[in-house]
Amino acid sequence: MLRWNEVSTDAQAAALMRPAVSASAEVEAICQAIMANVKEQGDTALLNMAKQYDNRETPRLLVPLSEINDAEQQLSSELKYAIDTAYANVKRFHQAQLPKDIKLSTQPGVLCELKYQAIEAVGIYVPGGSAPLPSSVIMQGVLAQLSGAKTVVLTTPVQGDLPINPAILYAAKLCGIKTIVESGGAGAIAAMAYGTDSVPKVNKIFGPGNSFVTMAKQLVAQTIPGMAIDMPAGPSEVLVIADERANPEFIAADLLSQAEHGTDSQVILLSNCALIIAQTEQAIERQLTALSRRDIAAQALANSSFILVDSIEQAFDVSAQYGPEHLILQLADANPYLAKVKNAGSVFVGDYTPESAGDYASGTNHVLPTYGYSATYSSLNLLDFFRTYTVQTITENGLKNLSKAILPLADAEGLDAHASAVKVRLEAMNRGNE
Amino acid sequence: MLRWNEVSTDAQAAALMRPAVSASAEVEAICQAIMANVKEQGDTALLNMAKQYDNRETPRLLVPLSEINDAEQQLSSELKYAIDTAYANVKRFHQAQLPKDIKLSTQPGVLCELKYQAIEAVGIYVPGGSAPLPSSVIMQGVLAQLSGAKTVVLTTPVQGDLPINPAILYAAKLCGIKTIVESGGAGAIAAMAYGTDSVPKVNKIFGPGNSFVTMAKQLVAQTIPGMAIDMPAGPSEVLVIADERANPEFIAADLLSQAEHGTDSQVILLSNCALIIAQTEQAIERQLTALSRRDIAAQALANSSFILVDSIEQAFDVSAQYGPEHLILQLADANPYLAKVKNAGSVFVGDYTPESAGDYASGTNHVLPTYGYSATYSSLNLLDFFRTYTVQTITENGLKNLSKAILPLADAEGLDAHASAVKVRLEAMNRGNE
Repeated sequence: MLRWNEVSTDAQAAALMRPAVSASAEVEAICQAIMANVKEQGDTALLNMAKQYDNRETPRLLVPLSEINDAEQQLSSELKYAIDTAYANVKRFHQAQLPKDIKLSTQPGVLCELKYQAIEAVGIYVPGGSAPLPSSVIMQGVLAQLSGAKTVVLTTPVQGDLPINPAILYAAKLCGIKTIVESGGAGAIAAMAYGTDSVPKVNKIFGPGNSFVTMAKQLVAQTIPGMAIDMPAGPSEVLVIADERANPEFIAADLLSQAEHGTDSQVILLSNCALIIAQTEQAIERQLTALSRRDIAAQALANSSFILVDSIEQAFDVSAQYGPEHLILQLADANPYLAKVKNAGSVFVGDYTPESAGDYASGTNHVLPTYGYSATYSSLNLLDFFRTYTVQTITENGLKNLSKAILPLADAEGLDAHASAVKVRLEAMNRGNE
Repeated sequence: MLRWNEVSTDAQAAALMRPAVSASAEVEAICQAIMANVKEQGDTALLNMAKQYDNRETPRLLVPLSEINDAEQQLSSELKYAIDTAYANVKRFHQAQLPKDIKLSTQPGVLCELKYQAIEAVGIYVPGGSAPLPSSVIMQGVLAQLSGAKTVVLTTPVQGDLPINPAILYAAKLCGIKTIVESGGAGAIAAMAYGTDSVPKVNKIFGPGNSFVTMAKQLVAQTIPGMAIDMPAGPSEVLVIADERANPEFIAADLLSQAEHGTDSQVILLSNCALIIAQTEQAIERQLTALSRRDIAAQALANSSFILVDSIEQAFDVSAQYGPEHLILQLADANPYLAKVKNAGSVFVGDYTPESAGDYASGTNHVLPTYGYSATYSSLNLLDFFRTYTVQTITENGLKNLSKAILPLADAEGLDAHASAVKVRLEAMNRGNE
């Protein structure tokens, strides 16, 4: 337990220090080779990689539509209900984010519009690895569906010759996704970026992944003009602010639910009460033994900080300094503090709002800025699937008036032709009036 | 003149090909050295660079507030009126973009909110070079002002020991900018990214610049966690779609106003009328001789395409394929086509809406995606100065209901602790009810 006010600013900074994550030059070189291979050989490259990396004997790329449609028959009614509910809640919250065009005259005869265009083709990466992640499909697929994107491609790795988990296929079906590609890693990213015979080329790629996926996303964004990616991904993190009446069992469970994500996860507890911190540490030890991923969680906890602050007020300052992906407020009354929330990805208010509610089903998005990006980057939202552009329509009289603003500025900036584009029109108007 | 339907798709693609822009390894190495220098030596490094690169004998960094306040006395009444009008129009259009928080219950007891936070500290780069650019101050400064950013830093290079142009200082004053730093290039970007004694550290850096500025922006975004930049900048471009009744003098003037920006500017004319294309070429020759930047414009025109299409309909398809920064529609009636506009940065509708209206004063932003980025990237808008985050507040009963969605999903994903964070709470509720 660190007593915030009793240590130096260096020690304070160290307590909030994230583990360094820098991609190795080796990862970059491997990704570049894979990308070049996919760019040149397309589907053939993807099929060869499926054999080589995913131990597939008879790899295929596209999942037949019938398999997507039939997947729900393999789900328990409980899991189907869960996916349906999560889908409905996420859809409800994001539907409210549908953008509206703006149209106004800035001065008479000068009409300006801000318009939204759905990004036409989007790619969604769903990691495979240790567990199937239907929630990851929902958190991205619902937004693609709501945007009206013309092309939505989902890529996910398949290990051995097991079929894709039916929960993933069913979630994709709800989101209206018809193009599901059995391919993972940097190869899948390259396929969506360049396009192959089976995989449509997309404009923007979303989704988390391992260091190869993250590196490949960065490389395609840097090298292909106009190619976009969602946001830089880092290890997951939670910061809990708890007052003296908070329940240590709840706090411990929330910290562990973050810690089980990976050994590089980071969890931070801030409290104004030393007893709560001590009781939480005891509760963690008790709860840890029951978890299947206890080794991962224990390693993550080793990087973590339990900090005693002077006041809940101060806890919010420390949180803003850290910029947590998830911020949990186990406070008797969080309302007076909500205006102090800064640099958080998603906030969980009150004793009965665990992070796992937002991870799965409350309706908010679980794709969040991490690793300090939350000072500038947004939680994934519907506008990430749109772009804006502007339109202006000016009448003859509108231009005549506006010329008094344009011409002196063009002159000040030494741009004759900018002025001339207005002057030829004013002259034409004058000739017309003669 | 290229007849679109009579050439191969390769020739079509070649006509829309942009000149390659790739930063040299040399530029990158120079930027890295400058950044390291600024990070280590701060103000001293900036002052040394001002002597070395900007020929300043007695460099200073911060412009005194009195100079910012007094600048308007040096402006002609015409230029002051122009800046005032541009400022008012840009403010009016962007004020309408102020975001509103969203709050809704996705199911009973599950309250979800989307909230906006202004990015706290922003940096604005204003290029110096051949002309002062007050319009560049307005197009960025108004947005920073409207967002309510706590810290706004403007950096701009000063050549020799001339003062900053009063038009820049006055525009900055209107935007409420008090921190103006006389420093340019990669050094100014590094100063805003790392902070120095005189230059506050910012979270996001906006603004165009030469290849060193662009490279430095990319490098700080890649290497400093959470540091953001506005958008990748490329050479400026315009595409004009003109019908058989369009005025060749207007078209020529619009193409030239783009071409004078730089030798790498690209201009494209699409028309369904060969005579209009021929007359525009003649008008360009005539108008070119009168321009002070005619050599630059002539070189830019050498890279450009004049394309005869079968129909105005087809012109919009070609435009979507190119994805122009500026799209000018000199059509008798553009309305039936506006729904076909795709991948454009800013659109100028009708004979009396020249690009220079949007460059300076109509109210729309002139910071636009270029080089094909307009398929995915937005025109600069007020939301670029905000980030979003989410908040959820769940009641005991809300969590009880939601648990039926959370628990099966946590189980399917093999994340015990995610389930446990809900279960400990359900158990506590049950104990409370006993």
